Amino acid sequence: MSTRKYDATDSGVVTFVNRFTVHSSPEEFEKIFAEVSEFMAEQPGFVQYTLSRSIDREKQDSYINIALWTDVESWEKAVAHPGFQDHAKEIRARTTNVGELYAPRQSFSVK
Amino acid sequence: MSTRKYDATDSGVVTFVNRFTVHSSPEEFEKIFAEVSEFMAEQPGFVQYTLSRSIDREKQDSYINIALWTDVESWEKAVAHPGFQDHAKEIRARTTNVGELYAPRQSFSVK
Repeated sequence: MSTRKYDATDSGVVTFVNRFTVHSSPEEFEKIFAEVSEFMAEQPGFVQYTLSRSIDREKQDSYINIALWTDVESWEKAVAHPGFQDHAKEIRARTTNVGELYAPRQSFSVK
Repeated sequence: MSTRKYDATDSGVVTFVNRFTVHSSPEEFEKIFAEVSEFMAEQPGFVQYTLSRSIDREKQDSYINIALWTDVESWEKAVAHPGFQDHAKEIRARTTNVGELYAPRQSFSVK
């Protein structure tokens, strides 16, 4: 078999993966995150986001945001926007984070 | 506003995020990964996976697999399956990795 069956290299989208360690209360972080996401969801090129929390009971301060954008340029414009920067300050004050951009190589969903 | 608009806490799914640093050729890793995924896609509870590669030119050995499963138990059964363990050996021989399970808190997609 080859990788061709699952080929996702022509999807064009990029995936922004942002891992957070949260220092505030989870409730406060999630509220602020929803506000940021409301802004981001209105920007050109936004496709979807999912904020998830570790299921490990010893890592309840560990969150991950997985966001899809149509292209790198749209994502860059959105994060450079003053409206995002204002919100991002609130996030940065309550977390440490590592964010990375990825491009899909393989993908498969059951029907 | 509240986080309720984006509430994803009742989806029930879990997200397995696995970050890889690849020591073999990318082509070889992707071929083996597709074989593992072919097995996983047939297991009860599998929903979808996307294997992506860093777009950073200095991190071309950095991959991330984002896989959705209907529930933790199905994922645990799949990774404990001898059919998976045989494949996983091939992956482990070519990578270092960090895998973590998450549960969705917020989600939103544009139509």
